[in-house]
Amino acid sequence: MKPLVLTAMFSALALGPVTQADEGMWLYTNPPREQIRAKYGFELTDPWLDHLMKSSVRFNSGGSGSFVSEDGLVISNHHVGADALQKVSTEKKNLLQEGFYARTAAEEIPCVDLELNVLQSIEDVTARVNAAVSAGAPAEEAFKARRRAIAEIEKESLGKTGLRSDVVTLYQGGAYHLYRTKKYTEVRLVFAPEQQIAFFGGDPDNFEYPRFDLDICLFRVYENGRPIKVPHHLAWSVKGAQPDELTFVSGHPGHTDRLLTMAELEYQRDVAYPYALDRLKRREVLLTAWSARSEENARRAKDELFGIQNSRKARDGGHAGLYDPVLMKVKADAETAFRARLKSRPEFADAVAAYDTLAGIQRSVGAIALRYKLLELGNAFSADCFGIARTVLRAGDERPKANGERLREFSDSGRESLELDLFSDKPIHTDLETLTFADSLTGLAEKVGVSDALVQRVLAGKSPRARAAELIQTTKVRDVAFRKQLYSGGAAAVSAAHDPMIELARVVDGEARELRRQIESLDESRKQAHAAIARARFALDGASSYPDATFTLRLSYGVVKGYEEGGQQIPPLTTIAGLYQRAESNKFKPPFDLPVRWVKKRSAVNLATPLNFIGTHDIIGGNSGSPVVNRAGEFVGIIFDGNLQSLVLDFAYEDVQARSLSVHSAGILESLRHVYGVKDLADELVTGRRR
Amino acid sequence: MKPLVLTAMFSALALGPVTQADEGMWLYTNPPREQIRAKYGFELTDPWLDHLMKSSVRFNSGGSGSFVSEDGLVISNHHVGADALQKVSTEKKNLLQEGFYARTAAEEIPCVDLELNVLQSIEDVTARVNAAVSAGAPAEEAFKARRRAIAEIEKESLGKTGLRSDVVTLYQGGAYHLYRTKKYTEVRLVFAPEQQIAFFGGDPDNFEYPRFDLDICLFRVYENGRPIKVPHHLAWSVKGAQPDELTFVSGHPGHTDRLLTMAELEYQRDVAYPYALDRLKRREVLLTAWSARSEENARRAKDELFGIQNSRKARDGGHAGLYDPVLMKVKADAETAFRARLKSRPEFADAVAAYDTLAGIQRSVGAIALRYKLLELGNAFSADCFGIARTVLRAGDERPKANGERLREFSDSGRESLELDLFSDKPIHTDLETLTFADSLTGLAEKVGVSDALVQRVLAGKSPRARAAELIQTTKVRDVAFRKQLYSGGAAAVSAAHDPMIELARVVDGEARELRRQIESLDESRKQAHAAIARARFALDGASSYPDATFTLRLSYGVVKGYEEGGQQIPPLTTIAGLYQRAESNKFKPPFDLPVRWVKKRSAVNLATPLNFIGTHDIIGGNSGSPVVNRAGEFVGIIFDGNLQSLVLDFAYEDVQARSLSVHSAGILESLRHVYGVKDLADELVTGRRR
Repeated sequence: MKPLVLTAMFSALALGPVTQADEGMWLYTNPPREQIRAKYGFELTDPWLDHLMKSSVRFNSGGSGSFVSEDGLVISNHHVGADALQKVSTEKKNLLQEGFYARTAAEEIPCVDLELNVLQSIEDVTARVNAAVSAGAPAEEAFKARRRAIAEIEKESLGKTGLRSDVVTLYQGGAYHLYRTKKYTEVRLVFAPEQQIAFFGGDPDNFEYPRFDLDICLFRVYENGRPIKVPHHLAWSVKGAQPDELTFVSGHPGHTDRLLTMAELEYQRDVAYPYALDRLKRREVLLTAWSARSEENARRAKDELFGIQNSRKARDGGHAGLYDPVLMKVKADAETAFRARLKSRPEFADAVAAYDTLAGIQRSVGAIALRYKLLELGNAFSADCFGIARTVLRAGDERPKANGERLREFSDSGRESLELDLFSDKPIHTDLETLTFADSLTGLAEKVGVSDALVQRVLAGKSPRARAAELIQTTKVRDVAFRKQLYSGGAAAVSAAHDPMIELARVVDGEARELRRQIESLDESRKQAHAAIARARFALDGASSYPDATFTLRLSYGVVKGYEEGGQQIPPLTTIAGLYQRAESNKFKPPFDLPVRWVKKRSAVNLATPLNFIGTHDIIGGNSGSPVVNRAGEFVGIIFDGNLQSLVLDFAYEDVQARSLSVHSAGILESLRHVYGVKDLADELVTGRRR
Repeated sequence: MKPLVLTAMFSALALGPVTQADEGMWLYTNPPREQIRAKYGFELTDPWLDHLMKSSVRFNSGGSGSFVSEDGLVISNHHVGADALQKVSTEKKNLLQEGFYARTAAEEIPCVDLELNVLQSIEDVTARVNAAVSAGAPAEEAFKARRRAIAEIEKESLGKTGLRSDVVTLYQGGAYHLYRTKKYTEVRLVFAPEQQIAFFGGDPDNFEYPRFDLDICLFRVYENGRPIKVPHHLAWSVKGAQPDELTFVSGHPGHTDRLLTMAELEYQRDVAYPYALDRLKRREVLLTAWSARSEENARRAKDELFGIQNSRKARDGGHAGLYDPVLMKVKADAETAFRARLKSRPEFADAVAAYDTLAGIQRSVGAIALRYKLLELGNAFSADCFGIARTVLRAGDERPKANGERLREFSDSGRESLELDLFSDKPIHTDLETLTFADSLTGLAEKVGVSDALVQRVLAGKSPRARAAELIQTTKVRDVAFRKQLYSGGAAAVSAAHDPMIELARVVDGEARELRRQIESLDESRKQAHAAIARARFALDGASSYPDATFTLRLSYGVVKGYEEGGQQIPPLTTIAGLYQRAESNKFKPPFDLPVRWVKKRSAVNLATPLNFIGTHDIIGGNSGSPVVNRAGEFVGIIFDGNLQSLVLDFAYEDVQARSLSVHSAGILESLRHVYGVKDLADELVTGRRR
């Protein structure tokens, strides 16, 4: 799930002192104690926070989850687990579509390259990171110094604690925190419903409300072949979320842009969003047309297509928000007012200058962004094979370097994750790869021109289609053993292999690295400018604010609440009865068809059970799978989407119509017991332990 | 149906002297008598040609057809008739989907704004048109002079003969011919099969072969409320097309680009195609997502979506062709060789210069093409309401002018067609209009920028979505009476109405007209340059060539013939048995589902009857619905598509894999008699007269 706007009242004070609205994606080190005490009379205690933090799980594939039994059971969304489900599916057994339940521990299926992280502690290392930078150092040097310091801190922490250690950048470079997480890579699939019911209503109902989705998926975490015992898990609320109830969301919002300056916002509106949307729509048409040719095609492309439709709808909405003159005026007025406050204070001269600096940086980024995205981000080379080839090539060049000098993804602390990914034997479909690779090479030729010297070397005298087919057919990087051999053999082995896809990556690598260097340097300058503004903001408005989302653990709060739209009152909860009604009124046609099991069990289910609900929580993409808990810290639901109006949250909080969407804990239990008949699993949720 | 390429051997001599290949979209005034005599020993006689010409019908909505009974019965494709079927459908009765049969004359349904033309005579008026231009006149003046001469010729001919008279430009301005056509606007629907069977396999099977489509639709032409008696119609061949048989296609290929220079081709590849494809894909995603929300949405958008998917697939293919270095080299070498031949001949100095002139013109066009497409072609204003508003506005300004001074669409000869279109009460769906209008306004803001002065006036301080909703809701142009009132009231009435959509059209009109003036002037210079090249080509290679397609009647020929692909031999004919097999192997899932009638009648049908067939005919989009006739001039099939490989025909002829696709006359009869049980209609086809 991600962002879009229809209309709204925007918080002009976004990220300044927050008063009445349920705004904020708060750091666990700076929770909104005052606001919640003042508005709801509830006290956020340290043990309460610590328990919720350690019960929260991050899915490295991009989502959130939580422990719901002491025996390592983790709940997340079906769409967060989709990638894992796809990877354990085969042509004959499509678990993503058909669902799965492990009746015994032995039946739990090991997932391929799925990594879960559980946050253990947070340490402010801002001073140490900043101390590494000499005063007045040029941006690039500062960046390197900071990177070295960060790599050092991470390595030191990893050595000392054995925990995965990541230094995260907050407040646009205003602060650096060391996040220590326990990392789990032995994860097994326990339960998934059919995709039909997890994503009932499909793309048409995506970001809409009322909704009727059982968007859940359950995993179990193992270590050394045995389920782990976890010290923290969330107790299950059988009653679940109630209307008007204060609830909390603990999860990993991926990215917000609330602190962007007007120059940056306008760049998003005029350049970044249009580019991204064109690319998404182009890919959506490509995959949709290909999927229609056969059921097997559809199965192969389904997961990527789902992600693309999701992003496209979200982006289209976010873009509409940027074209809303009301939103832009609120933001522009706030910026003007803040700059005026700065001007009278000489101690904020750097913040005053930062606005122009940022505008200049944005222009510099604009001048190289296209080639950067095509060549370094790989938009011109859409095939897993290319990604693998490039990683193999770069590993050969990077691994001999000192840890602090390497490209970030090759640092010591990331090695395990990198290898997990690189040596994964997840299926790669050559037909699909050929299709997407040909299309992305065509895109390169279109956007840069066939007469460009690099494009000519990339195409090697062939048409994009012919070149793509040739490369995908002849590369050997689909063979995991081959990858391992080159990875351990180093640069010499890579050169000697003469693999055509790796050689293509080599052709691109010089310019790609140079573009990355420039972008990272600009980004560093950007961070410094934002840090200057952030410092001024702290000084003027106090520390009672939250940073933009960065896929780190955050706490949001809000109430279960409906809203008005087009003169109509949308109620806060839907029921299982509503699910059957929506299916019926659409004649059970896809995507409004129900799994056979649901059709059969209709009379066995308590139709009045709540299924989904909405709330005023401040969430964004990445929050998918976040637990929703009540004052007692009990699991009352799980975030799976936001409504269309919530898509504006990327840029500003609003609570008139924007709503988080969750699956209700009572609906989950009712489904497990009376539709799926998985009594043991339901009991484990209620008792918090496996029988 | 339209273009794409996979691989091919190209005819380097395209449009030069044609030898063995079945190449050419020939003018009826210059048929390929010699080639056919030499290769097939068949004589094209004048009566044979005259009969075929006068049996051929042009659908002004963009397609071809033919008379197949003396009682005015016309056969075309279902997808050519789709627009008419859509317009006579309602929310309750979807004739496009469900099909239709008029058991009696009284049941035949009058179509809305459908115009059919039947060519009566062709006259070469090149000398007269060119005589109107003074030697050395600047391009714009030449253009106006030529336009005046053309308008005069058309008007004079209309007055003298009462026939619709159009002067068409051929050979890129090398020749001007006066086409006199009998125009029919009273057309009634007689028979249409279900869209499921007409377009069996849907977008996935579009441009593919083997195919199994009953892509036909039958109309009857009336005058003054009674069916007409036509002097020419095609006799029906019960046996139909046979393997290896010489056959002819008489139809209206819409557009080819075989005479473009390299500079022009590269512009197509680098600018025109990418722009068009981005736009098509964007619209496809928009309509697909909207259609998925409800069945009624899907019905409303279906026709436009079908057209878009069709164009997108074709364009993608054509674009792939342009990226094929083999194709481009063949074309480049041919151009180089021809230019070398010209250089030694001083009498062709103008042709030599023309190549550079054309490159310069292409640059000038490139500089304004984007705004021209957005503002004048209306890409920024995708809503029927806007088109109507603009026509009303311009009618007020244009109609008082002298005939020769008006914008082309307001000339006297086009008045009837214009009014038919403007006063049509075809349904306009405000929800769909709001959707597409908002998206196209967003596109305008994206491509031109919100700070552009015109964009600011267009958006009037609102977001594109809000502005679109407001304009579509408040305009009155959906009311036909309102349009009539303003049309007859003239400019003063239009001004006084203050209709917001008309006022928007007015805001745009100044720049739009100016862009059109510039483009038309450049186009005139382009024509002159091409005419110089065409003259040289005639002089060097004789008149034994055919001009690029221009939606005028042409004759193609070829044989019924399979081809090899991936080592596999694709047979020339498919059967009804194959249809059932393909449906079965796809589990009857859409778009591979069969109408109930077809499922029920399976045992009543002769499964061995041919259904579709392929041939080497030189066709392109616009040929849809063209009759295929044998040596005896009998109807043996009807063109409805080309295979993927045929999409290269836009730029060059090839016959290795490129194939035309037709419905077989025996398959049509078998379906009418034994699936639909419409014996009277089948009898009318076989006997050539109504009982």
